[in-house]
Amino acid sequence: MQSIEFYRSEFISYLEKRVKAQEPRNLYEPITYILNLEGKRLRPVLVLMTAEIFGVDYKKALDAALSVEVFHNFSLVHDDIMDRAPLRRGKPSVHEKWNVNTGILSGDAMLIVAYQLFENYEDPMFRNLAKLFSKTALEVCEGQQYDMDFEEREDVTISEYLKMIEYKTAVLVAATLKMGAIVAEAPADAQDAVYDFGLNLGIAFQIKDDFLDAFGDSETFGKQVGGDIIENKKTFLYLKALDLGTPEQKKELLDLYSIKPEDPSAKINSIKDIFTDTGAAKSTEAEIGHYTQKAFDSLKKLDISADKKAPLQEFGENLMRRKV
Amino acid sequence: MQSIEFYRSEFISYLEKRVKAQEPRNLYEPITYILNLEGKRLRPVLVLMTAEIFGVDYKKALDAALSVEVFHNFSLVHDDIMDRAPLRRGKPSVHEKWNVNTGILSGDAMLIVAYQLFENYEDPMFRNLAKLFSKTALEVCEGQQYDMDFEEREDVTISEYLKMIEYKTAVLVAATLKMGAIVAEAPADAQDAVYDFGLNLGIAFQIKDDFLDAFGDSETFGKQVGGDIIENKKTFLYLKALDLGTPEQKKELLDLYSIKPEDPSAKINSIKDIFTDTGAAKSTEAEIGHYTQKAFDSLKKLDISADKKAPLQEFGENLMRRKV
Repeated sequence: MQSIEFYRSEFISYLEKRVKAQEPRNLYEPITYILNLEGKRLRPVLVLMTAEIFGVDYKKALDAALSVEVFHNFSLVHDDIMDRAPLRRGKPSVHEKWNVNTGILSGDAMLIVAYQLFENYEDPMFRNLAKLFSKTALEVCEGQQYDMDFEEREDVTISEYLKMIEYKTAVLVAATLKMGAIVAEAPADAQDAVYDFGLNLGIAFQIKDDFLDAFGDSETFGKQVGGDIIENKKTFLYLKALDLGTPEQKKELLDLYSIKPEDPSAKINSIKDIFTDTGAAKSTEAEIGHYTQKAFDSLKKLDISADKKAPLQEFGENLMRRKV
Repeated sequence: MQSIEFYRSEFISYLEKRVKAQEPRNLYEPITYILNLEGKRLRPVLVLMTAEIFGVDYKKALDAALSVEVFHNFSLVHDDIMDRAPLRRGKPSVHEKWNVNTGILSGDAMLIVAYQLFENYEDPMFRNLAKLFSKTALEVCEGQQYDMDFEEREDVTISEYLKMIEYKTAVLVAATLKMGAIVAEAPADAQDAVYDFGLNLGIAFQIKDDFLDAFGDSETFGKQVGGDIIENKKTFLYLKALDLGTPEQKKELLDLYSIKPEDPSAKINSIKDIFTDTGAAKSTEAEIGHYTQKAFDSLKKLDISADKKAPLQEFGENLMRRKV
């Protein structure tokens, strides 16, 4: 096993070799642009790592890793249009740098390119990868739709919210790990175990993201603390507070979530108090613990040696240890 | 062999059975909406017909036919956003009836669903269909990009224009026929021959569409005659006239193509005169004949009995006979 840094740098070299601007330039330049914006390359690294854990050379997994990264960036390009986001990783988003039409069409091309990358695998591996990919990609679309729907709805339940984050974020992490296992021709139960590990870790991670937005350390948290509260975003904390709060607490929360004051600091503090007083904060932490535990339980079921499991264990621990 | 009407109605029944609105409704309802707008169902009928020509039951080709139709409609949904088209087949386009975000996301889901439909075929048929599909879909994106690029350019050559219509329209007709042949496990040279037939027929059809826009019979032509001229659209006729015209004719054409008069009839007549006087009209008709001939030559090369060829021959003749 190599270090995460090794896999990342091998992946970036491969990406640079494989993804080149070609004609028509207005279609392909946005693709090379978005793929070359600095990112953590978390998903492709997981594909390569999982392939080696199950005993094949990471090189065999490079096309699957690239496919996952191209798909992830496709979803960013289209989501940024839908969310009217002017920036992506601190740089202009594709529809800002070019225009909406270019964002739509280059995104479409990326989705197709992601499928094409599987063509370098023989049958039935090609089918297994493409099938998992289609299922996952469709779920990601469904998750994005639920997320947009929820903005307009006042009656979102906790279980609906959990399904939304599962589809929008967690299934791709799960599929990423499973693709590494497919390329390594790991047994079906091992493929399922790494999928479940990724799925539950992804859900835990997303709930933690909601939690840290309110209770993260402003010194180290990458984004503005309270950003979700400022935007009146219905997070896990918010839904849990509505669920657990007294009628008075509920009313106060709903009232606060109907305003956007110029100076949001008083609103943020009041809402954080509600999150604490209702028990929503504690309950959210418990939920994070629950999904993290489920993830590690899946890992335990995996029938490989402890030293092979270690990188996944470590990856999960690092991800969940973050206070930022 | 059955009639085109038979295949069309079998296809529509299958579509109604397979494509149903599910949750989240805001994602899937636009898909059922666009797929149920009345259309000629030309592409899926061609898949079914070709499969039977090569000796398998059309039922085996229904998923491939549906995939092609879903893809075609995906491209309509995204193109309508890019072209800001409020209507599609006389009904509100998806982004008009819902909104642009819904159009983008439902379109994405359709592209994925189109791939999923191939999962009902065994290896290596699944791979052959998916591979042809990816190549074709990417070319369609490239064609759409060239089309958008050409709107901004004043130096488009005839050969660039031909490549644009080949990618934007003809490759999908070609792939449609080849998919029927793949499902029927026809030999490789037969697959290539029907592909070439479809490709050249598609190009001929598209040039004819340009021609009829100016010289079609206003009584029978479905769209407004002169629509391309009103919009200053760079058609095959226009490029050919610039190519063949004297400096004076060229200047007059460029001048006329820089204005949008409220009453366009004088402009339309002047431009039609230029198309005739420069020889562009005659040359365009010759080009239509050239590609039609190439299509039928490909059909001749096809090593099947004359009565099996007849439906394709007839389809091509009907398509090219149209004066509307």
